[in-house]
Amino acid sequence: MLLYAGTPAPRNYPQNTWPFRASSHFLYVVGESVPGGWVVFDEDRATLFMHYPDRDDALWHGAGESPAAVGDRLGVEVRPLSEVEAAAFGIDACTVAPPRGTDCARLSEVLQRTIRVGRTAEGDEALRDAMIAARLVHDEVAVAEMRVAADAAQAAFAAGRKHAQPGIREAAVRGRMIAALIERGMSTSFHPIVSVQGEVLHNEHSRGTLRDGDLLLVDLGAETPTGWASDVTRTWPVSGRFSPTQRDLYQLVLDAQLAAIDKVAPGVRYLDVHLTAARVITQGLVDLKILRGDVDTLVADGVHALFFPHGVGHLIGLDVHDMEDLGDIASYAPGRERSTQFGTAFLRMDRDLVPGMAVTIEPGFYQVPAILNDPSLRSLADRVDRNRLARFDDVRGIRIEDDILVTNDGCEVLTAGIPKSTADLDWS
Amino acid sequence: MLLYAGTPAPRNYPQNTWPFRASSHFLYVVGESVPGGWVVFDEDRATLFMHYPDRDDALWHGAGESPAAVGDRLGVEVRPLSEVEAAAFGIDACTVAPPRGTDCARLSEVLQRTIRVGRTAEGDEALRDAMIAARLVHDEVAVAEMRVAADAAQAAFAAGRKHAQPGIREAAVRGRMIAALIERGMSTSFHPIVSVQGEVLHNEHSRGTLRDGDLLLVDLGAETPTGWASDVTRTWPVSGRFSPTQRDLYQLVLDAQLAAIDKVAPGVRYLDVHLTAARVITQGLVDLKILRGDVDTLVADGVHALFFPHGVGHLIGLDVHDMEDLGDIASYAPGRERSTQFGTAFLRMDRDLVPGMAVTIEPGFYQVPAILNDPSLRSLADRVDRNRLARFDDVRGIRIEDDILVTNDGCEVLTAGIPKSTADLDWS
Repeated sequence: MLLYAGTPAPRNYPQNTWPFRASSHFLYVVGESVPGGWVVFDEDRATLFMHYPDRDDALWHGAGESPAAVGDRLGVEVRPLSEVEAAAFGIDACTVAPPRGTDCARLSEVLQRTIRVGRTAEGDEALRDAMIAARLVHDEVAVAEMRVAADAAQAAFAAGRKHAQPGIREAAVRGRMIAALIERGMSTSFHPIVSVQGEVLHNEHSRGTLRDGDLLLVDLGAETPTGWASDVTRTWPVSGRFSPTQRDLYQLVLDAQLAAIDKVAPGVRYLDVHLTAARVITQGLVDLKILRGDVDTLVADGVHALFFPHGVGHLIGLDVHDMEDLGDIASYAPGRERSTQFGTAFLRMDRDLVPGMAVTIEPGFYQVPAILNDPSLRSLADRVDRNRLARFDDVRGIRIEDDILVTNDGCEVLTAGIPKSTADLDWS
Repeated sequence: MLLYAGTPAPRNYPQNTWPFRASSHFLYVVGESVPGGWVVFDEDRATLFMHYPDRDDALWHGAGESPAAVGDRLGVEVRPLSEVEAAAFGIDACTVAPPRGTDCARLSEVLQRTIRVGRTAEGDEALRDAMIAARLVHDEVAVAEMRVAADAAQAAFAAGRKHAQPGIREAAVRGRMIAALIERGMSTSFHPIVSVQGEVLHNEHSRGTLRDGDLLLVDLGAETPTGWASDVTRTWPVSGRFSPTQRDLYQLVLDAQLAAIDKVAPGVRYLDVHLTAARVITQGLVDLKILRGDVDTLVADGVHALFFPHGVGHLIGLDVHDMEDLGDIASYAPGRERSTQFGTAFLRMDRDLVPGMAVTIEPGFYQVPAILNDPSLRSLADRVDRNRLARFDDVRGIRIEDDILVTNDGCEVLTAGIPKSTADLDWS
């Protein structure tokens, strides 16, 4: 087996790079991001090929640890980068593609065969499947790291809640939350969402200003120095008080999340967790007279997806969408494929849960004009009482998300320390 | 001419990317980062090929501006991405390589010839030279953007200075400074340096804690939403008071910076600006009895580089090291090459200055054990009085950096609003 960490991605010229993060497969095996590093397992011998610093490195990047010390710490033999080609020559190494094209090109050179981003080359299937099997079930070390990522997210949310007041800009809240992670020597695990336009699912912009009456949706995760992720969403009223309509819909999403979490246990199919959330939301929307019809029929027809158009969650681990670089092969059990139904098609995972798996549970409610007015979704939208829905127009988007570890007898919420708004608890 | 903006660089899997920043050459011509965009100039017609959003984009990323509105705003014809290959077919377009290998591979496909990162392909030399000529001299729009970047850096330094106290972690100061940029809807123009280990020139870590007696070195720049950069370094005593030895060496670096800035004017060779700083530092070190010998001889021999081992600065514009993706061809005038002398070899630029050019001026003083004890630099190190130097061991690294615009009759400091420590001004 030969795995390539990859190289830092340039922002605009070679020396101006994004912070280096090794390929998650390399990270999983080696335990840290070694820039430009390669690890070779040949029989039971592990060798790490890494850059050996010279005088210029000492000047520009600091003396740092010696290669020998790195080897001792990681329990591998260490060799200079220049020797990797000779080491790979003649051994019929299998590999997993790193996430960047440039790195795949370099790996192709070293292995003398074509490696492509997101593809498994012929002969690499067994390694891919072994990596998936290993990474699907988190050990104690992984869980400990995910708790660290959860604690950092908690600190970020505390900083964000404290700062979010009417008149403050979304970007200012974003800045405070990211600063709380940087202060801990961490980064975000993905570009966060900090917006009162919660109906834009992956809203990357924070250009607005918080106003009395707005709901602020924040979807943010931390990444620990060794690459483990958290991923949390909270939605709360900027004023500290929900309106009655906001409270109704918030409670509905919260009920759906709690019901879905309650469902998480070994042996349960993740699609059924998704459908549990969908059913609670649909029942609630019928009760609120926003939807008309029989709940089971509405769910079967996918009408809930007009308001809850994404999946209930995804795997989480070293990647915030764990192993999504491999496509659906890690997240969907053999023989299962994505639904073609609107909404359910966005479900990122459908496996039977086993102890040690970690997933997010993140239902939501959104009013997206492009969905509600889409002619191709007319047969669904006909089930909506538009007059009734108009009364809830102070709700643009609500999502509540936690990271859940499947245990032997149920599950544990890793992000339980991050408070949620409820009817009884306002964040004013 | 066909220029490719490039695509967002993935962190770990395709949908988890670093914030998108187009190639600076594309940015210069088009004026904004269009993800995956292409611009084609054919005779006097400009066409922008861009992604046309569909319903899923509206759901995940927001409705956004229509392609037609983008075209109106930018003054170009707009066409969907799928048509770029047909548009490029048969026109013998010249180009400039984008900074990422993946993007060069895609550009190679579209142009049906090989484009490599950092290389100018045959036939593209005239476009490259025209881009360099245009980008070397900043117009009013560019200067206005660089002032915005300077103002944002000023806000970041104000936040950092306020927070930097004994007992505070370097990472906490880093967080506050970056938050001040995020709050303005901006990012850093490069991974900042926030460290009491100022002698590590590109120290990317902030793992330490500020202590009474430390000097904190911060090298940070802002990037405006359209990609323009600032780049500023300040060094100040954590306690608010320099020690006498720190004050001596700080004053020396400040004198060198002011003398170098004073030298900046049209017609002046940038190497001479560098040597001006080197001479002031050398004279000061002789006066402080750290160096022994004749100043001119010491500078000619490069002895100053033991303590000031880098160049006095670089071009700045859309890139913080402007056009460094082209190698030295933008920064070194035709016929000029990098010196092979230690220290001067790191000078990133040697052109004659013209009005509208922007450069940094950033001399420094550092005690780097790997340099001072390098056997190959023995003939330089013999000129150092080690006993005398030992008295200054509370100075690890000092650098002072500003962004300077060459004007018709001299220069203007774009970052003048960011205060410097002097003997008369402490930042306590």
